[in-house]
Amino acid sequence: MDKDLRIIDVDVHNDLKSPLELVPYLPEPWRTRVAASGIGMPGHGYMSPVGVVRKDCMPPSGGPSASDPDFLVQDLMQQFNMEHVILTGNMTNISTMHDPDYAAAIASAYNDHIIADWLSKNDAFRGSITVAPQDPLLAAKEIDRLAGHPSMVQVLMGSAQRAPLGQRQFHPIYEAASRHGLPVAIHPGGEGAGGTPPPTPAGYPTRYLEWHTCLSQNYMAHLVSLVCEGVFEKFPNLKFVMLEGGIAWLPHLMWRLDKNYKGLRSSVPWLKRMPSAYIRDHCMFSTQPIEEPQEPQELISIFDMIDAENILMFSSDYPHWDNDMPTEILKRLSPEARTKIFNTNAKTLYKI
Amino acid sequence: MDKDLRIIDVDVHNDLKSPLELVPYLPEPWRTRVAASGIGMPGHGYMSPVGVVRKDCMPPSGGPSASDPDFLVQDLMQQFNMEHVILTGNMTNISTMHDPDYAAAIASAYNDHIIADWLSKNDAFRGSITVAPQDPLLAAKEIDRLAGHPSMVQVLMGSAQRAPLGQRQFHPIYEAASRHGLPVAIHPGGEGAGGTPPPTPAGYPTRYLEWHTCLSQNYMAHLVSLVCEGVFEKFPNLKFVMLEGGIAWLPHLMWRLDKNYKGLRSSVPWLKRMPSAYIRDHCMFSTQPIEEPQEPQELISIFDMIDAENILMFSSDYPHWDNDMPTEILKRLSPEARTKIFNTNAKTLYKI
Repeated sequence: MDKDLRIIDVDVHNDLKSPLELVPYLPEPWRTRVAASGIGMPGHGYMSPVGVVRKDCMPPSGGPSASDPDFLVQDLMQQFNMEHVILTGNMTNISTMHDPDYAAAIASAYNDHIIADWLSKNDAFRGSITVAPQDPLLAAKEIDRLAGHPSMVQVLMGSAQRAPLGQRQFHPIYEAASRHGLPVAIHPGGEGAGGTPPPTPAGYPTRYLEWHTCLSQNYMAHLVSLVCEGVFEKFPNLKFVMLEGGIAWLPHLMWRLDKNYKGLRSSVPWLKRMPSAYIRDHCMFSTQPIEEPQEPQELISIFDMIDAENILMFSSDYPHWDNDMPTEILKRLSPEARTKIFNTNAKTLYKI
Repeated sequence: MDKDLRIIDVDVHNDLKSPLELVPYLPEPWRTRVAASGIGMPGHGYMSPVGVVRKDCMPPSGGPSASDPDFLVQDLMQQFNMEHVILTGNMTNISTMHDPDYAAAIASAYNDHIIADWLSKNDAFRGSITVAPQDPLLAAKEIDRLAGHPSMVQVLMGSAQRAPLGQRQFHPIYEAASRHGLPVAIHPGGEGAGGTPPPTPAGYPTRYLEWHTCLSQNYMAHLVSLVCEGVFEKFPNLKFVMLEGGIAWLPHLMWRLDKNYKGLRSSVPWLKRMPSAYIRDHCMFSTQPIEEPQEPQELISIFDMIDAENILMFSSDYPHWDNDMPTEILKRLSPEARTKIFNTNAKTLYKI
């Protein structure tokens, strides 16, 4: 990598030392329950045979990987010459919880923890306002509560949802984010758990390998919905960030959606441009886990088709099992494209 | 098009003149019920704003489009210099029915109708053994019953299924097809209807435009399942035909699945090769509805990535709203690739 290219990593999973860290920030009745029984996050039943979190980056101070701010700076940021990291935490699966009040309480407590125990520790950290989409009005309130914090740079929720994210019940979230000039990001992980549909349109796959491979399908479904429901016409300054959903499916999706739009546009009269134009102007994608063809040049061809240098942002997914390290990918891009993907696209989006 | 290139069209939707055409082939109690009340196919609730069937190709003899064998020969085969058509009918949505006995009875009656009212009418027609997957042992019996017919060239079922198609409950269907040397094909249309999961991993989209665009996701899920469950190791001569599911997503899917396999292969120890190798050797894809980029050369780049000339077969989807006509696509291929895609790939697969 270019020695003078400082990286912004847009998907770093800081972890709780223990669920008990949330207790001081929870109101009753949740405080007593969590203190006694933990968070009770719904599970999807798919277990990675290699674990989800790397074991080789556990902090010497104890606790799980990525639970110590100082060690995260040393192990990730200093090693890879990072200027900033966008903390995405480990709580987006609250989107799969059944009780909207409990989900909203956990989200608020988690956000307070992020501010107190992470953002205050290092100026290079930026945070995400995690929201529970089950009650979109409560989610909008949470955005209003925290959007003024100078280091909170986006709204974040799970891609595991009860419904496609373009549908109208979610619009209060976009209204609030848009009003505060914050992007909305989604992150996978809870697909198939709790109150969410089966993780594929074919139902429940058998193993983590299949479940993980199929996560991109959920991103495709949300993206089609966001465009067709007119979210980007209704909220013209809204930016949507698709974290960890893959990218090489974009040519297929944009071409198929544009073609169908040409034949069926009477059903979405609020759209004024081709669907792919909304995607190019309003959506950003993170690199990890980047698809890896045997012939690297084929990925570069895909990059050319999707204007990658303007819609991609580097992410490591540290400390997860499949995290991509900066030196391993994107070697073949032009210096200009590398600078955008590794730094300036994120800097512009997050107004850093 | 090359004047001497005769076409084989692998997805032609012959239709019933009326559901009553099935009545003579149904046993009781279904005969009386269908005669009185029709078939009662589950609906998914998504309506195309332009209709599903073209109105400009209704036969002068009366009845719905593609319900008259002679007019189909004239309107499709003669006009586009077709050597053979593979009839895929309009009954794959029986895969969404709730009652396995009723679904199997409708499938058998439909197959008897195809033999009597279509295959006997023209030597250029080839038929599909439609099966109801709800009871795979009954489906296998139906395959055994009809595999000997010289014009029945494949087993066909809906891609709308209760579960991913690699899972073990479906293996009796593959065992029977494999034993008779018949490919197994799937076709979309019933996604989200009857006993099937929501048509996307994000739940139920709002409109036909979104539903139709997302159909490819179901194909991705089935393909991941077929490979990971080891179907192509267990049935090494089995060929799987993915009709009307799109193709430009294949680079994404093959690269993502191969990458995940490298990290997680301990969970699928029966696989002996890279997942993409099974796809290339065992799966065939139909062209319609082909993705259409603004820059046609980008589709050719995708073709190169997926060895398209050896895995694609031309299909028109006649007489559906979005059917692709032979003169409109694939113009930029080499003559050799055109011959394979428009003729010899199907001839080899279907042993014509």
